[in-house]
This record gives sequence, structure tokens and C-alpha cells, in this order.
Amino acid sequence: MYQYLTIRQFARTLRNLDAVLDKAIKHAEARKFDVNNFCAARLFPDMLPFVTQVRIACDQAKATAANLAGKEAPKHEDNETTVAELRGRIAKCLAYLETFTAADFEHTKPDTLIRLPNRPGKVIQADEYLFARQIPNFYFHVTTAYDLLRHGGVELGKADYLGPLGFVDG
Amino acid sequence: MYQYLTIRQFARTLRNLDAVLDKAIKHAEARKFDVNNFCAARLFPDMLPFVTQVRIACDQAKATAANLAGKEAPKHEDNETTVAELRGRIAKCLAYLETFTAADFEHTKPDTLIRLPNRPGKVIQADEYLFARQIPNFYFHVTTAYDLLRHGGVELGKADYLGPLGFVDG
Repeated sequence: MYQYLTIRQFARTLRNLDAVLDKAIKHAEARKFDVNNFCAARLFPDMLPFVTQVRIACDQAKATAANLAGKEAPKHEDNETTVAELRGRIAKCLAYLETFTAADFEHTKPDTLIRLPNRPGKVIQADEYLFARQIPNFYFHVTTAYDLLRHGGVELGKADYLGPLGFVDG
Repeated sequence: MYQYLTIRQFARTLRNLDAVLDKAIKHAEARKFDVNNFCAARLFPDMLPFVTQVRIACDQAKATAANLAGKEAPKHEDNETTVAELRGRIAKCLAYLETFTAADFEHTKPDTLIRLPNRPGKVIQADEYLFARQIPNFYFHVTTAYDLLRHGGVELGKADYLGPLGFVDG
């Protein structure tokens, strides 16, 4: 069940990221610069640029769902050059994530061995894969995308990153 | 069980962050500047500085464990001004996290209502608290601390952030 809850949260976080990109577009319009200038932004010359941070966030979410459910994730080409295209990438990823239900992870136990397409000859237990690799890695790339926009002057706060939360009176 | 696994992973991630701080110290020594200059570093003037990013990461880990287990987290004063003191803050947090076992979370169900000290009059379900707020928030601050060091030229890679992973031959 926690595997499904993680995937559902990855989807929520990507929806928040999409809303953050919308704020970046409005910020660039107000300041009269091309929002796509963000695509090549890096925090240091040997770090991956913004466009790649968003792509990897999507791919990590997709791969987590697919690998834990024993499915094959759809391949999305790395050809985006605009923020609008990155939003399209997020939308494709969300459409895939939304095909999953809790039932897809019913047969995956904490110690089920996961085989990754890009790590031939190696396996990792499902819980180690999820907690030690995929969760930290997914949030790393979403946060770095957010940090790049903040560094570039877009007005964002933690509420944009977290989205609305289920607090109720009590 | 996944609540405990999350806390255990937060501890692993803070140990990785401690090792990252050690690399920052060695980098500053090699480049002959005061490593504590990082403490006030920000990615934008209205963002929180490095010292606060590390403190919040610690506090979020502590609060997650305490609130889900129905305990009260120890208060650690926000008085660090050096990287060495930040490592001390991490060590105190780790010592607290290591007091927890899976049994501490046995009575916490997905819909157990959590009351936060800083949100009077509000409650949130345990799973929503964990997945939608604490996990994204913890990794946000660890990643932003990492990003600030990378932005400042410290040579770090994803392996420093993730730490060693449990892949085996298979």
C-alpha cells in the first residue's frame, strides 16, 4: 500500500511542479524575458540544466511505478527545449502514473528483488529501491528544478512545492 | 512499518549530509577559504540560508518521528554559526532518531489524527502528514543544502547524496 501511496504522492508533486512552471511563465512575461531561458539554467557549470532536472523527475516517478509493479515504463524522448514542452512531458508522465492502482503493487513484497534496465547483473530489494533510492532521488530533482527557478527570481514559496495539504479543524 | 522505514531513511540521509559537510570542509581547506562562509549562503536573497536549511532538515526528521510515535521531540537551539556546529546538530538529531524502533509506530494507523505543536486547532491524518508534507519537506531542505554547496563549487555527486545502496549481484 505504501508503494502506491508513494506513486500517488509523486503524481501530486508533479502537478505542483506543473503549477510552478506556470508561475515561471507568468514571471517571465511580467519581467519581459523569454521563460525558455530557464531551460539551460544550471546552479554550477557541471550540474545538469533545468530541462534535465524536470525530465529526470518525471522519469524517476515513471520508473518507480513500473519497476515496483513489474511493468515496463513508456519511453519519452528527451527532446524538450521549451517550458511548454516540459509541461507536456509532465502531462504524459501523469497520464501514465494515473493508470496505477493499489492493486498493481499487491504482489510486491519488501524483499522482492527489482532488476533495473540500466543496472544489468544487479538486483535490489523493493524497500531499499523505494526508500533509499527512488524517494530521495525524485525529490532531489523536483527540488533542484524549484531551486533553479527561485535562484532565477521566480516568486515561489514552500506552499507551491507542497501544494494544498489535508489539514482539517480538530 | 513504512513509518519506521521512513525514519530510518531520514537518518541515513542525514549521515550522508554529514559526509557532504566533511567534503565541504576539505574543499574549503584546499581552496584556502573559511568553510563557514557557506553558513550564510543563499540561492536568492529571500531564501533561507544554508545554516537554516540544515537545521530544518534535522527538525523535520525529528518532528516526523516524534509526531507519528506520539512523543515529544527534544528542542535543539538554533544557535549554530559554523559547519562544525551544524555537524553537532546532525549528530544530536541522529542520536534521537536512533532511539526509535518499528514498535514505536505500531499504534499509528494511516488515518490516525496528528496534532502539530505549531498548527493549533488543526489535525492531519498520519499518511497525509507523512507522504504529502514530511517526506517532500525533509528532502527539500537536504537537497537545497546540497545545491548550495554545489553552487559554491564543492565537488559532490549524486552518490554523496544517496550514499551506498544495497545492490547485489543477481
